[in-house]
Amino acid sequence: MTKKLHKSGVTAAAGVQAAGIHAGFKKRKKDMALLYFPDGATVAGVFTKNKVKAAPVQYDQQALQQHDRFKAILINSGNANACTGKQGKADVEETVKLLSTELNIQPEEVLVSSTGVIGMFMNMETMKKGVKAIAPEVSEFGGAAASKAIMTTDTVPKEVSFTFEVAGKTATIGGMVKGSGMIHPNLGTMLGYITTDVAISQAALHAMLLKAADATFNHATIDGDTSTNDSVFVAATGKLDNPLIVSSDDAGYAEVEAAVLSICSQLAQLLVKDGEGATKFVEVLVSGAKTMADAVSVGKSVATSSLVKTAMFGEDANWGRVITAAGYAETEYFDADVIDIAFSSKNGEIQLCEAGMGVVFDEELAKKILEADEINILIDLHLGTEAASTWTCDFSYDYVKINADYRS
Amino acid sequence: MTKKLHKSGVTAAAGVQAAGIHAGFKKRKKDMALLYFPDGATVAGVFTKNKVKAAPVQYDQQALQQHDRFKAILINSGNANACTGKQGKADVEETVKLLSTELNIQPEEVLVSSTGVIGMFMNMETMKKGVKAIAPEVSEFGGAAASKAIMTTDTVPKEVSFTFEVAGKTATIGGMVKGSGMIHPNLGTMLGYITTDVAISQAALHAMLLKAADATFNHATIDGDTSTNDSVFVAATGKLDNPLIVSSDDAGYAEVEAAVLSICSQLAQLLVKDGEGATKFVEVLVSGAKTMADAVSVGKSVATSSLVKTAMFGEDANWGRVITAAGYAETEYFDADVIDIAFSSKNGEIQLCEAGMGVVFDEELAKKILEADEINILIDLHLGTEAASTWTCDFSYDYVKINADYRS
Repeated sequence: MTKKLHKSGVTAAAGVQAAGIHAGFKKRKKDMALLYFPDGATVAGVFTKNKVKAAPVQYDQQALQQHDRFKAILINSGNANACTGKQGKADVEETVKLLSTELNIQPEEVLVSSTGVIGMFMNMETMKKGVKAIAPEVSEFGGAAASKAIMTTDTVPKEVSFTFEVAGKTATIGGMVKGSGMIHPNLGTMLGYITTDVAISQAALHAMLLKAADATFNHATIDGDTSTNDSVFVAATGKLDNPLIVSSDDAGYAEVEAAVLSICSQLAQLLVKDGEGATKFVEVLVSGAKTMADAVSVGKSVATSSLVKTAMFGEDANWGRVITAAGYAETEYFDADVIDIAFSSKNGEIQLCEAGMGVVFDEELAKKILEADEINILIDLHLGTEAASTWTCDFSYDYVKINADYRS
Repeated sequence: MTKKLHKSGVTAAAGVQAAGIHAGFKKRKKDMALLYFPDGATVAGVFTKNKVKAAPVQYDQQALQQHDRFKAILINSGNANACTGKQGKADVEETVKLLSTELNIQPEEVLVSSTGVIGMFMNMETMKKGVKAIAPEVSEFGGAAASKAIMTTDTVPKEVSFTFEVAGKTATIGGMVKGSGMIHPNLGTMLGYITTDVAISQAALHAMLLKAADATFNHATIDGDTSTNDSVFVAATGKLDNPLIVSSDDAGYAEVEAAVLSICSQLAQLLVKDGEGATKFVEVLVSGAKTMADAVSVGKSVATSSLVKTAMFGEDANWGRVITAAGYAETEYFDADVIDIAFSSKNGEIQLCEAGMGVVFDEELAKKILEADEINILIDLHLGTEAASTWTCDFSYDYVKINADYRS
């Protein structure tokens, strides 16, 4: 029992309580999480770039423009409340009211996230019952339960936390993330929640989150699809009592920025490792690009290639598929005759292509390198000094199995 | 035995001979094809847009700029001769010389195609042996054998032919195509060869082929990857003795243009139906777009979505994945609140989404519709009058199986 009394993930930082329960959106598993900040928290968010945005995403985007302090974020899994029109919007508003009444806070202090099936109206009876049940459950030991309640096709709950120094004090940051499959450059179907005890303005927090999401979640790719509900929030309770961080000149700004980047990076890697049916984590490292845009474009093209991903699953040193995917990336500068390609892992490194040509290589060493769980695909474009990293996973039988029948 | 004496596919038109043999690039299966035009043919071609181009593609592009009449096209499967540098180019030139000597024609009258593994030098001993063996084999009944010899992961040979009227005479057009998997908007790994007996200029033929390829092969998509070797050729022998067609005002121009479009369309659909591990043919019909570019972009986005394709395999009426993929397509005009989505097949039609919202639908009818081998996904953007069609296939366990281990 003491195992449960652990301030993990989103509840690691002071001033954050959480809970995770089964409300009834799913048959048996936990499907409702609540983050509660009794004394409030400054919240920033980044959202899907899909032109089809779920009702809660539209609601949250507006709420974050109007306010900077919030006391609760309610999350349900099982129903995305997307493509639900006016009814969907009304359901979000009713949910906000139900929760604010139950927690005795203002409706303006509530944010809402949903994930699950698209195009179905929320079951508001289930929502009402769930909200009543979850409100009394929140505690500073609820992070682990919350991280379970936000899962859909995830195979494991994903949470991390660590401490760092801010203005001579020990600050804490923690987070949880949900998502597997559908993870793409533009965020995919993922929900991420990060909490910290530092005191910081919404604008500063938002700038840090945007930068970190762009460098981490947006470089993680599982299958190339982006979703209607993707959202990442960061909430800062201010319990650390450091001097408020407002601009990049303020003490602690650089440390908090680095912490937000680090936790996003850790959470994004957990996402990719839990890619639907994934058996391997693959990092595509593009270097020698003339422009950063070219490095990113080549990395994403290789990381989203179904043929590269199936070759990784098959542990086949098929670098021809890598150079093919690099060649159809949209780039400004590209010279097929100077590219180098190598594969590496904890089992070694092997050069496969030099100056755009295949080199004779040791097939046994290549096989040994590809047997590892984490593989690096190294591409040197030899045209400049820019570099970018993209994370992906392999493409297995189980990917098809999981996705052929998710809805039912 | 008489079965083999059939003038099918590329040998349907007068003035074309062909052969298909086992040369030794593959272990057992046929791997070398030859198209021979004893009295020459006017040839046009379109090629991959990948920045990494195989040696034979580079050779053919140059040859077609310099000449318009050719007598032979040699094709090998098993080795793509891509990423092979100067050696690869020298090997193409040597191949051209070997074949011209064997057929007693000029080197300038020879074109070469390759498909197979990337990054390996050609085995020129095998090539030499193969060229010697195939030259005496050509006949006007060799179309079927040639269509087998160009296969890689294809499960069936793909050839068609038909007749049409040109200037009061009965003209013939025939073709063969190779490819499965890797088929994408920008042509994918495919080789296509079309022959006809009409008399037409290279410029007119090229214009027709460009237009037809853009409307057919470029709208067919299996897995989103494009290749280093994609090529489609059309050869016109002139044996029909019609007045030479040069401009669109000439008698027969419209008929030949329609025939080229029709055969490209038939060949492209055969390609998609033979998609690696495909169990269903899926046509995505986008209508009501404000611009043609938007219609094409939405169609390709839906047709390349791994999640849509696995849902088709699972016979799951998951229209949420369709609207999600439509929403992340790059479009100029898009309104999530007016879109309609329906599925149809020979078993009926069912509306799933109206004005961006899910509608209550008969799950049993939906299931019955999706059980068919050919499915239509109908998307009405309700913003204009432009429409486009994209062909794809579903994504099955076998896709992963075939591609995890192709190279070895």
